[in-house]
Amino acid sequence: MGRWEPNAGGRLAEAAMALYVERGFEQTTVADIADRAGLTARTFFRYFADKREVLFAGAGAFQEALLAALAGAPDGAPPIEVVAIALDEAADLLGRDWEHARARQSVIAANAELQERELMKMVALSSAFADGLRARGVAGPDAILAAEAGVVVFRVAFERWVAASEERDLAQVMRESLDRLGLIVEGRPVGRPASPGVD
Amino acid sequence: MGRWEPNAGGRLAEAAMALYVERGFEQTTVADIADRAGLTARTFFRYFADKREVLFAGAGAFQEALLAALAGAPDGAPPIEVVAIALDEAADLLGRDWEHARARQSVIAANAELQERELMKMVALSSAFADGLRARGVAGPDAILAAEAGVVVFRVAFERWVAASEERDLAQVMRESLDRLGLIVEGRPVGRPASPGVD
Repeated sequence: MGRWEPNAGGRLAEAAMALYVERGFEQTTVADIADRAGLTARTFFRYFADKREVLFAGAGAFQEALLAALAGAPDGAPPIEVVAIALDEAADLLGRDWEHARARQSVIAANAELQERELMKMVALSSAFADGLRARGVAGPDAILAAEAGVVVFRVAFERWVAASEERDLAQVMRESLDRLGLIVEGRPVGRPASPGVD
Repeated sequence: MGRWEPNAGGRLAEAAMALYVERGFEQTTVADIADRAGLTARTFFRYFADKREVLFAGAGAFQEALLAALAGAPDGAPPIEVVAIALDEAADLLGRDWEHARARQSVIAANAELQERELMKMVALSSAFADGLRARGVAGPDAILAAEAGVVVFRVAFERWVAASEERDLAQVMRESLDRLGLIVEGRPVGRPASPGVD
């Protein structure tokens, strides 16, 4: 075992992301990442199972935080409000570092396997939202409808937010996207879309 | 090559489904299916790549029919109406044989790999709906929101329909589920769910 290195996990993650953006995910090896961070491959594997895990390491904690927010929503809140509270939590967690979110998104968008992994994360999140809503007494089909509505709003809002030409408030983009889903489902003519950066 | 067999594909598909329900998907071999249909394994492989394909053989044609309906929706129809027209087509195609749909659903629900394949079919359908809406001039984020709304309504309605204690009109269950999504997204208290078979 090497000597103790301060914040080795964070340095490795930062080095990995920089290399994924510069060279592409496929073209980056664990040895490259360790080199860039001034650490060894052995140290890398103490923190991450493989180079893919660098991109998904926080997914479990993220989902748990959202589910805790969902479970803590006021009693009797309509399902979509419960989901919106979980989305506020997501915005709070992801909205802090636009540059990082943007870099991560561009790496994932360039690789089919990573895209599939990200998609599976969304599927798992929707399923967990539905379970959480059922645990609050929401009936099965309604729980699935509300959960899927929440996840598609999250996906669309997050994509708009990372693609925007300047940083906006992610929570606000989420609320706009939820309103937009409401207009669409009501069948109102939706006209021209609000472009990112414009209400 | 064997001699020509009348409706060999249909007989094989029917034999396969009967065996999947009786014994389970994993416990059924291609030889069992061919035996039950009074045909050979060689004939089976002229129709299906493997025993899984029996369950998914119609998926491509199904998606194409839905996309054709979507493309043929009246000009200027709101996105959700365009999607609803595609769902009517889905109901028309799937709603004809409840017993078959029910059997297929029970086989898929019992096997994780089949569930994942079915899920991927839904993801592909949503993506195709979004592409079809964009081709009609709907903006990107709106197209994704409307497409995902359509696919979750389809999923929830289909599950309610196959699980119902008596056969109902699938198109009606779809419309009810779409209305329900509208209520949920609006944030109205949704109260107790309509149970299958009750409006």
